[in-house]
Amino acid sequence: MVPGAVDVTAVAAEGHRYRGAATMGAPHCRITQLMAQDTYILGGYQTDFSRNWLKEGKQLWDIFAEVVNGALEATGIAAEDVQVGHVGNFAGELYAMQGHLGAFLVGTNPAFAGLPTARHEAACASGSVAVLAATAELEAGRYDLALVLGIEQMKTVDSARGGDFLGTAGWYEREAKGITYPFPKLFGRLGDEYDRRFGLKDEHLSRISAINFANARKNPLAQTRAWQNDEAKFATQIAGRIKVSDCSQVTDGAVCVLLASTRYAEKYAKGRGVALDRIPRILGWGHRTATLGFDDKIRESEGDPYVLPHTRQAILDAFARAGIADVWGVDAIETHDCFTTSEYMAIDHFGLTPPGQSWQAIEEGVIELDGTLPINPSGGLIGAGHPVGGTGVRQLLDAYRQVTETAGEYQVVGATKVATLNIGGSGTTSCSFVVGN
Amino acid sequence: MVPGAVDVTAVAAEGHRYRGAATMGAPHCRITQLMAQDTYILGGYQTDFSRNWLKEGKQLWDIFAEVVNGALEATGIAAEDVQVGHVGNFAGELYAMQGHLGAFLVGTNPAFAGLPTARHEAACASGSVAVLAATAELEAGRYDLALVLGIEQMKTVDSARGGDFLGTAGWYEREAKGITYPFPKLFGRLGDEYDRRFGLKDEHLSRISAINFANARKNPLAQTRAWQNDEAKFATQIAGRIKVSDCSQVTDGAVCVLLASTRYAEKYAKGRGVALDRIPRILGWGHRTATLGFDDKIRESEGDPYVLPHTRQAILDAFARAGIADVWGVDAIETHDCFTTSEYMAIDHFGLTPPGQSWQAIEEGVIELDGTLPINPSGGLIGAGHPVGGTGVRQLLDAYRQVTETAGEYQVVGATKVATLNIGGSGTTSCSFVVGN
Repeated sequence: MVPGAVDVTAVAAEGHRYRGAATMGAPHCRITQLMAQDTYILGGYQTDFSRNWLKEGKQLWDIFAEVVNGALEATGIAAEDVQVGHVGNFAGELYAMQGHLGAFLVGTNPAFAGLPTARHEAACASGSVAVLAATAELEAGRYDLALVLGIEQMKTVDSARGGDFLGTAGWYEREAKGITYPFPKLFGRLGDEYDRRFGLKDEHLSRISAINFANARKNPLAQTRAWQNDEAKFATQIAGRIKVSDCSQVTDGAVCVLLASTRYAEKYAKGRGVALDRIPRILGWGHRTATLGFDDKIRESEGDPYVLPHTRQAILDAFARAGIADVWGVDAIETHDCFTTSEYMAIDHFGLTPPGQSWQAIEEGVIELDGTLPINPSGGLIGAGHPVGGTGVRQLLDAYRQVTETAGEYQVVGATKVATLNIGGSGTTSCSFVVGN
Repeated sequence: MVPGAVDVTAVAAEGHRYRGAATMGAPHCRITQLMAQDTYILGGYQTDFSRNWLKEGKQLWDIFAEVVNGALEATGIAAEDVQVGHVGNFAGELYAMQGHLGAFLVGTNPAFAGLPTARHEAACASGSVAVLAATAELEAGRYDLALVLGIEQMKTVDSARGGDFLGTAGWYEREAKGITYPFPKLFGRLGDEYDRRFGLKDEHLSRISAINFANARKNPLAQTRAWQNDEAKFATQIAGRIKVSDCSQVTDGAVCVLLASTRYAEKYAKGRGVALDRIPRILGWGHRTATLGFDDKIRESEGDPYVLPHTRQAILDAFARAGIADVWGVDAIETHDCFTTSEYMAIDHFGLTPPGQSWQAIEEGVIELDGTLPINPSGGLIGAGHPVGGTGVRQLLDAYRQVTETAGEYQVVGATKVATLNIGGSGTTSCSFVVGN
């Protein structure tokens, strides 16, 4: 066990007890240590998610320059200090006919000549796997300051073609080829599965949607902040039980955060005259991948308390590494709500309620902005927007905003610890972080 | 400085002295420590690069299963021991309409349920950035055994469309859009730049090609091992000074390696009754990114001794971390030869000759299989094949084969240390490893 680590056996126990993990039984299910090294979040920058880059005549590289310079300015960090760059992006090859996006970082500042870079992808969890790649390098002592940029330009194609592109986040050949809007269908079926196992009322999904849109009105960078309610449009059925109001948005968006080792953070804190412990850290992380096909996942979790046990495990792993006992150890959650059904799933998977009882937390107002455990104060993917490769980084930045009390109108009062959940595919790759002081 | 690290100031000095690095001047140009933790290579598996998966009726997931199981069998490792999976892939979205490739790992073995996975991309250096992501996690102590799989299926489209896809490795909008075979053109211009600065004779490029094809005949997995010489076809001009014989191949290929922490490697060595120091390690690595546009690179390196100074620096970084003084500290090189001009560049950038004098090493037979410092004993990208996202991993596996004396007919006698160089784009992302005991 590393110096400073505490025994997390008790914390991790629940993860081992629950049937899914016990069945899986692999050594990779055990958390044997807390974080090897602290990673500090120094701040960042986010684009206004309501923009349309194509209509502005902007290309990807224009946006790279904007968010990198925005993040440097927001943190007061000199470009010369950045030692490595990681980019989260889902499908730049499809939406913008451009791969190799890590390299675009280099052109944003002359000081970045030679900067090591890479792009990381796990569908809608691309931003989080970029963060994990960056923090691994910091923990390993390779670098002291990493820049992580999550980006997706999606408003380059019509919705049918965009839906087809998103199908490559699932098993395209089996789940998406020739299917209109494959992902609304898959997440509609997630709702159907909840209905079959536990019962599910659409009014609870509608409430999730309403809360996200309401929170987004307080977020000056949210895509839907100024939308007029269009009841008829919102009620339009997309696939199965999924209506327009149940869907996250198609978004052009980019987010950049600067992550630091203790060594750099100490220097940074000293230079700004603040105590090191005032700078937020990534206290814990979880990262799990389930099999790609949705039906395979559902078949595998039959009899398990949780519909998506690997997503549950990613959350438990993050809690264990953060040394917190359960979800009541955090003050807010930024979760993946690509559809209302995914947030409904997140509620019980985070442990706000027993499995299948997410409706309780909705009915009791627990997840509202002034509730006991607000979910998506930012508005989430439904309200704030969902630039696929940017979302995981946006969640981390919003967690940072909350714990530094800089979230403005969507501030959760007294938030000191915030958890995130970012999901790629139909519950396939799950990444969770706990951010706090 | 970490425990066990030695002072590499002397080794790294050359890197600091040379003008390119001095001009760049950024802190990320300094190597302040050797490897924080050892990473061991336990072995792996490679597909026959002469195959055509589409013609076999095979899909990507079939290949995933083949190479994962092949690597587990080759190393005698139980699937339950694998704790994390990393996939290197360039453009699965374009060639095979499939993203989220990390998730395909999970379906290859029931023991992989929940396995954390991600896909990593840096154009033709995707395999190497996947290796770097895996080794960072091992060095950080997150996991003890990582599986890295590099894969590309390219024979799904005709050569014009494939050439267009490859254009997304460069700055598509500026360098590739509407251009036939953009990459042969870019690397033809690399040759032109050598010609302008130092003089370049096509006979030396032809010799590079001939050596790679000759070596490939000894490699039972090389794509061109059984090709009949077709002088007329080989002489066909593609772009500028680039002929068919100067080009790497369009390849369906996948490679998988198993990488371990010291803790796992000790257990593994003990279980097999071998000494730990008989298991090869990644002794050093380098990772640098230059600006994306080729013309910008060339303009920036004007007056520098090296045409691609950041590529040079990646090599120097790997040498410094490995604690070796120069290229004569390795016994063989597996380099990126997407075109003969890139290998010509690699010769002087590795330091076999002074800048611009690569022809000397070619004329003196230094780089031949029985020369004093063989380059591409495997046949390289020209002879063995170039499945884009697989190449970096294939180079690492070939380095492993050499230092374990299991390379068969293409064995370099007495090889104990081997260096690799993997390049994404037009000299944009450069990754280098030193493998040895």
